[in-house]
Amino acid sequence: MFEIEIKSRIDDPDQMEYKIKKVGAKFEMEITQEDIYFNHPCKDFKITDEALRLRKMNNEFFLTYKGPKVDKETKTREEIELKTDEKILDLLKNLGFSIAGVVRKIRKNYRINDMVISIDNVEKLGYFVEIETFGDLESGKEKILKMANDLGLNRLERRSYFELMVGEKDGQD
Amino acid sequence: MFEIEIKSRIDDPDQMEYKIKKVGAKFEMEITQEDIYFNHPCKDFKITDEALRLRKMNNEFFLTYKGPKVDKETKTREEIELKTDEKILDLLKNLGFSIAGVVRKIRKNYRINDMVISIDNVEKLGYFVEIETFGDLESGKEKILKMANDLGLNRLERRSYFELMVGEKDGQD
Repeated sequence: MFEIEIKSRIDDPDQMEYKIKKVGAKFEMEITQEDIYFNHPCKDFKITDEALRLRKMNNEFFLTYKGPKVDKETKTREEIELKTDEKILDLLKNLGFSIAGVVRKIRKNYRINDMVISIDNVEKLGYFVEIETFGDLESGKEKILKMANDLGLNRLERRSYFELMVGEKDGQD
Repeated sequence: MFEIEIKSRIDDPDQMEYKIKKVGAKFEMEITQEDIYFNHPCKDFKITDEALRLRKMNNEFFLTYKGPKVDKETKTREEIELKTDEKILDLLKNLGFSIAGVVRKIRKNYRINDMVISIDNVEKLGYFVEIETFGDLESGKEKILKMANDLGLNRLERRSYFELMVGEKDGQD
């Protein structure tokens, strides 16, 4: 079971919203997300291509481990996510995890079948579209690449917002 | 805010139950607990006197960080606990935490005011009584030491069940 996603920079969020509705996706919600990324106490997540993230969303907290990317075109990777509470921040600090950076964004979610399409307004980085689905790698990838093509997305970006924020170069793996 | 607790070995759980009821404590519940203790990926919790524990209790999961003991007589230490789910086990393993040991016990809880008294039947280790309260260190300590005296507890044990199981010597800190 993989989270399969693709991301592209966009310039005009209003025009993109129009296209997303035109392919039949329905608006679901707008959410504000604050993502705290951690350094591991004794390995370099940049080198291992992993991530540990605490997401705050409407006063709910989710802890997510992301494994190394497994694919060259998409951002596909193993993901373990669980609901937690604010105390996890102190717990992780006591275990030696330090804060590497914080990403804040306003996300508008649209859904079509088992795909979620998001327009993200990311603090300091600008506008992006993400297309995401869960499931089998090959068929999921085909589906989201087709949708990306339908929406005219042509500035694909494999780096996470966190990587973009700290200025990491692409193609490191 | 501290968890202040004291523990003693006992030989006769039935006689102890009688004494606990006689001081006015009320039976609350019997619970089966499975505690998984972890090794840290890059420091030795034995040396730092810390612990990371995942407790499974009636299909609920609680993750607890325990800081170093701060006191010679009791087991008092900083504690951060949060409710979580089964997926935390895989998440921790992916971060490099390995399982150091598992402690299984049947616990009978009694309560008097803000004190919890437990009779523990610990797999492979035998019977123990724990007295626990939360709050200010000095007054809490006085209160539980008085209760231990009232119950005739005289085989105090500062080591955790996990430490007892892996055969650690007392007085290492």
